[in-house]
Amino acid sequence: MKKWKIIKETDVSPSKWFPVLQHTVKLPNGTIIDDYFFSPMGNVVMVLAITKKNEVVLVKQYKHGLGEILIELPSGFQQKGKTLKESALMELEEEVGIKTTADNLIFLGKTANNPTKTTLVTHFYLAKDLEFNSKQDLEITENIEIVKVSPQKALEMTKNGEIWAVDSIVNITKAFFKYPEIFK
Amino acid sequence: MKKWKIIKETDVSPSKWFPVLQHTVKLPNGTIIDDYFFSPMGNVVMVLAITKKNEVVLVKQYKHGLGEILIELPSGFQQKGKTLKESALMELEEEVGIKTTADNLIFLGKTANNPTKTTLVTHFYLAKDLEFNSKQDLEITENIEIVKVSPQKALEMTKNGEIWAVDSIVNITKAFFKYPEIFK
Repeated sequence: MKKWKIIKETDVSPSKWFPVLQHTVKLPNGTIIDDYFFSPMGNVVMVLAITKKNEVVLVKQYKHGLGEILIELPSGFQQKGKTLKESALMELEEEVGIKTTADNLIFLGKTANNPTKTTLVTHFYLAKDLEFNSKQDLEITENIEIVKVSPQKALEMTKNGEIWAVDSIVNITKAFFKYPEIFK
Repeated sequence: MKKWKIIKETDVSPSKWFPVLQHTVKLPNGTIIDDYFFSPMGNVVMVLAITKKNEVVLVKQYKHGLGEILIELPSGFQQKGKTLKESALMELEEEVGIKTTADNLIFLGKTANNPTKTTLVTHFYLAKDLEFNSKQDLEITENIEIVKVSPQKALEMTKNGEIWAVDSIVNITKAFFKYPEIFK
């Protein structure tokens, strides 16, 4: 099985907030397609953050793309000029007011979010023994309510649909499969 | 916590293959934002398909958005004028040559795929006791290699990263949590 050959790339983004590229590609069977569209969204980082009091830190937030209020794990896009871990640390501090260090981020794996339509890859971390030792620093579009639950409850919420954002489910279940003792 | 009020909606899609809407919205705090962009991608259906020989049916396929060859579960967008289950049955038949009935589709849950940037919701099903009783009917852009593994192996592949498309991971783990006996 082979990858497609890119013959031409055109930026057709309707906005800098929503990048879209158009590719003309040659398939291994020789077919030329001139209308393959996808969004180069890049990397997202997400953290299963657990405090010293054994609370999982969730964020409840309105997401206008879907038009729903969702409970998710702290996450955000990788920032320009920052590593994945640096970006994860920034998100933790800005979204929920927790400052910690890169040493405390355990990498749990990554996922392709929507490989037909985007380049988006989410990188999952686990961080333990955290404290609310800093301040939230939210953007004007962000209205975040922090929700604290036990690890057992967080896992239950992925099963019963209370947590239904796909990345949040995977972050919690990846932690469960690697470190089941956390959820006992 | 409140939803945002939509003041104006403009279609700024660069192509019918990549719909993008621009919203002017009013936030609960009164702020007006005139540049919220998202993609109304709609519904996707996915099936954890298990044969009478106890094989999970996976599809190996090049995905040009991400630019990678991935192993995933059969899935596709909901088709116009079709229910979710009808769309799932069509995908199963067209992608892997398995014909079954709606009665045999067990709903496992749904996920929001990327609620900041899309409306995309994936609906997960489990289907058992299947047979390869029909023909693949692929589009010119599709080159699908069918991979058959045991349920235990499929679960292992979600843990070790061989299966790293986020929806496929969730479909398998949702089945595992609801029907662990399948994976023993």
